Amino acid sequence: MIYNLLSHINSPQDLRKLKADQLELLAKELREFIIDIVSTKEGHLGASLGVVELTIALHYCFDTPKDLLVWDVGHQAYGHKILTGRRNIFETNRKLNGISGFPKREESIYDTFGTGHSSTSISAALGMAISSKLKGDFTTQHIAIIGDASIASGMAFEGLNHAGVTQANLLVVLNDNAIGIDPSVGALKSYLTRAKIGQKPLTDNIIEALNFHYEGPIDGHNLPKLLKAFESLKTKQGPKLLHVITKKGKGLKQAEEDQVKYHAPGKFDKATGEVLSKENQDLPPKFQDVFGFTLLELAEKDEAIIGITPAMPTGSSLKYMMGKFPERAFDVGIAEQHAVTLAAGMATQGHKVFCTIYSTFLQRAYDQLIHDVAIQNLPVVFCIDRAGLVGNDGATHHGVFDLAFLRCIPNLIIAAPSDAIELRQLLYTATQDLQKPMAIRYPRGRGSIKEWKKTFQKLKIGKGRCLLEGEMLAVLSLGSICSNVSKGIKAIDGNFSIAHYDLRFLKPLDEDLLKSILKKFQHIITIEDGTIKGGFGDAVLEFAQAENYRGKIHKLGIPDQFIEHGDTEELYDIAGISSEKIKEKIISILK
Amino acid sequence: MIYNLLSHINSPQDLRKLKADQLELLAKELREFIIDIVSTKEGHLGASLGVVELTIALHYCFDTPKDLLVWDVGHQAYGHKILTGRRNIFETNRKLNGISGFPKREESIYDTFGTGHSSTSISAALGMAISSKLKGDFTTQHIAIIGDASIASGMAFEGLNHAGVTQANLLVVLNDNAIGIDPSVGALKSYLTRAKIGQKPLTDNIIEALNFHYEGPIDGHNLPKLLKAFESLKTKQGPKLLHVITKKGKGLKQAEEDQVKYHAPGKFDKATGEVLSKENQDLPPKFQDVFGFTLLELAEKDEAIIGITPAMPTGSSLKYMMGKFPERAFDVGIAEQHAVTLAAGMATQGHKVFCTIYSTFLQRAYDQLIHDVAIQNLPVVFCIDRAGLVGNDGATHHGVFDLAFLRCIPNLIIAAPSDAIELRQLLYTATQDLQKPMAIRYPRGRGSIKEWKKTFQKLKIGKGRCLLEGEMLAVLSLGSICSNVSKGIKAIDGNFSIAHYDLRFLKPLDEDLLKSILKKFQHIITIEDGTIKGGFGDAVLEFAQAENYRGKIHKLGIPDQFIEHGDTEELYDIAGISSEKIKEKIISILK
Repeated sequence: MIYNLLSHINSPQDLRKLKADQLELLAKELREFIIDIVSTKEGHLGASLGVVELTIALHYCFDTPKDLLVWDVGHQAYGHKILTGRRNIFETNRKLNGISGFPKREESIYDTFGTGHSSTSISAALGMAISSKLKGDFTTQHIAIIGDASIASGMAFEGLNHAGVTQANLLVVLNDNAIGIDPSVGALKSYLTRAKIGQKPLTDNIIEALNFHYEGPIDGHNLPKLLKAFESLKTKQGPKLLHVITKKGKGLKQAEEDQVKYHAPGKFDKATGEVLSKENQDLPPKFQDVFGFTLLELAEKDEAIIGITPAMPTGSSLKYMMGKFPERAFDVGIAEQHAVTLAAGMATQGHKVFCTIYSTFLQRAYDQLIHDVAIQNLPVVFCIDRAGLVGNDGATHHGVFDLAFLRCIPNLIIAAPSDAIELRQLLYTATQDLQKPMAIRYPRGRGSIKEWKKTFQKLKIGKGRCLLEGEMLAVLSLGSICSNVSKGIKAIDGNFSIAHYDLRFLKPLDEDLLKSILKKFQHIITIEDGTIKGGFGDAVLEFAQAENYRGKIHKLGIPDQFIEHGDTEELYDIAGISSEKIKEKIISILK
Repeated sequence: MIYNLLSHINSPQDLRKLKADQLELLAKELREFIIDIVSTKEGHLGASLGVVELTIALHYCFDTPKDLLVWDVGHQAYGHKILTGRRNIFETNRKLNGISGFPKREESIYDTFGTGHSSTSISAALGMAISSKLKGDFTTQHIAIIGDASIASGMAFEGLNHAGVTQANLLVVLNDNAIGIDPSVGALKSYLTRAKIGQKPLTDNIIEALNFHYEGPIDGHNLPKLLKAFESLKTKQGPKLLHVITKKGKGLKQAEEDQVKYHAPGKFDKATGEVLSKENQDLPPKFQDVFGFTLLELAEKDEAIIGITPAMPTGSSLKYMMGKFPERAFDVGIAEQHAVTLAAGMATQGHKVFCTIYSTFLQRAYDQLIHDVAIQNLPVVFCIDRAGLVGNDGATHHGVFDLAFLRCIPNLIIAAPSDAIELRQLLYTATQDLQKPMAIRYPRGRGSIKEWKKTFQKLKIGKGRCLLEGEMLAVLSLGSICSNVSKGIKAIDGNFSIAHYDLRFLKPLDEDLLKSILKKFQHIITIEDGTIKGGFGDAVLEFAQAENYRGKIHKLGIPDQFIEHGDTEELYDIAGISSEKIKEKIISILK
């Protein structure tokens, strides 16, 4: 593929030298470039394809980097990255030491605000706009580009609600494609759907009711229309919103037709668009599917069971229950706060609510977990997905703080299954007369067990288990990092007798088991795929200190820094919790 | 005062035996009863006075407790408590072992959902409504009563947005009095203000745009109108909203005129309405005022300084800066998420942003703190107000988790001043070329130092200090609990030589100082007015373990349970961190 125009564009300054009628060709090239790279290097596809014209128009009309663009979530910023000097390194996208899959301030002056989580762009851009105004700068433009799924989140509303009473020079570009990762939901979405290109909603315009100047909707793939709209909006004072209708996956037939699959399709044939099969048939299942299928199975037998996801039916595999029991399984949109308190409300009426939220997004509902669930001791079950290091999505998406931020909450049971069978049994256990809130955290991706559909068996809350007897040293692990420990121990040459315990529960701790371990071993290693500060290791340390333990506890876990993107195995190694690093640690103690 | 009607009402069943034309007299009595008790026992006043008629009408028209009322925030639920069997114990309101100042499930079957934090009611009531529907119960009514300040929070929007696409039997009563604790702000508020009693907004009706049936606005002090509206809404299917206009403080002239002061006025003369002066002139200042006046002083000299509060200008004392520099000090409404990311946006443009949030409400912005501030290492300053036990507001308001949930966040500096002078110096320090985000946490109420306006002096980040030299045992405290330690040590009879260190910073820890302490002492007590799990004590423990410390560390802090309401001193004692309990602990170790 020859990129006649694109290959000369190393910055938006180069872009702005083009004539307006060349932009359509550039859009074609940019789209092909994205498809070319993502088809082999993987990454997020659909969102960026949908905003190719929008991205070009923004950098063409506005004086970036002086004018400030904030890309909400940032899945859609590949075109932006390619046009702002990162074309030649774009193939390192999401790889260790490569560029990030999301906008990132450290990476480029054009990335004015790091994103990853949704619905932050309006607040951030408004902050920038108010700053400019205070500095007497009335020329800089401040632009938030936000999707229709993200603008429906409460945080975005808070931003709009504040912006509407300022005179800040803020432009919100609503990229309305009726889908986030899964199709958008909610009343605002229904409302937006009623707006058609060229047909402004005449009454009940929510945006105008919030004091915004509203323009649109316009066709987001029509470059002349976009250019005209931006040129006109540039001169408009105060907060304004441009409603742009786009198609996610635009320009790749399959991506347009199966927008969920092509959000991040993995490798695909760039000519045909077909996703390359990974021959997954023989692999052990994803933890997500173990959750999704088990919950469905439980829900078939127990009418009291309800499932809730904030906008991740596919990612979390709640989609299986949603398919079979649509009236009992809810996608509430990007609304973690609401999801948790909704669950609490249902729990007061006797329903058994399973609320599945990614670990990093549970940070959005921390107060609701404490205030609405834990204080009231309601038996809501939190299925905390993508806990631990998640790999290529990087710092914004690693679920590494949950053990620490949950441990301090009274009443809460905190469990972490070491494998798929354990996850299945914990889910079952949570349906058996649960009297308190419970968190079950598990990682992204596949475990190592294929035969996971065991007969249901209730686990005893707060009881761990010994996986390997030993004499010289005990390794205590929590959760699926267990498998790294097993591999690490197995790889040790020589005649070392090492014990391995799976504690299963961070809270309540298995004090009987711990007492026996403290009694027996002079060296204990704790290991968790969570921050070293305040989590599992600290819980063991606290107990050991109270028991006057005189031996040595070696804590392994995510060090006190943000871990960047890379393959999970690479990141485990960096964090010192790969099987190799565990092995080395054990040897260093025993030698 | 004789309560001819009220004294016979021990439940809503009794209320419903009255004739409709008796309700006005009942309202008068209920109002007087509230004034009578609150004038001497203290508590929240204005909000409950404003909803006297609404409360009566709700319990009269609806079949409580079968029909489910959820009072948002719950400041306004005094009338509800009095009418639902708690009249005779209402004078124990907010006292230790007395009834809670907020709705509480444990307390009464009429309190269907515990509140305290705002904007949860729509989600909770929607959850109940969906539960009823799933159970085939189509008669139960589910009613959220929410104020105009609370409905403008993002979480409430999430609830509305979801409700609008359900057919759940949900009634939202919007209690619109144009004020929360301070006057409401934001575009939605401006919008609501344009609606007048009897005049429905014809275009741009946000509520209708979200698929709600909208009725009103009606006069919330007009009982016949309220009864008529509720009777009609009872039969209406699906989500609906009744817009009710009320006056906060209704029926007490001063409370109507100074709504901020009479939100929770302390003791007052029930005849004249005058607040009884507490003769505060000679008392040391509140930490809040030290913050507020110091920030104003700093802002006078440094144009880069910005202040942000989510809806607490009076409570946090940001009002002083807002008065003098309205363009640089912002009340963004009940919008903690937005507040933090707005601050981050401003910080990218070089402003020095002081974002003051109550500890318990910072839980609402936990993700934004991590994702938008800490990952980007932006030097936003979080002034964390009402940290530690707050007293009579109880479990929902104690700021006891912050040390634990903040300690695990990389990049963050965490400081806790032991007194007013230290707070002042920390605020100053934060203006001096701060390179990272910083949290400064301080308690509700007064310190013990009157002469606090010392010359500004930059403190060294991560450096603690020795307050008292000693030989036998070291007490390490963090923050204002310091004064309990000093008192406790002073009260010990006999010849004990006790050292006292004020660590000042939870992060970074003063490792040099700690090393010298570990070297010298065989017994160390750590003390914090925060949860015992994951906070200061654990940080010291972690460091000591890494240093192979062989002595004993005794951790004092809030035990792993929710602490109820009571006077702060009583609660300190229950938590084991009063000066008396500290003294006893020291003696028990040394004897």
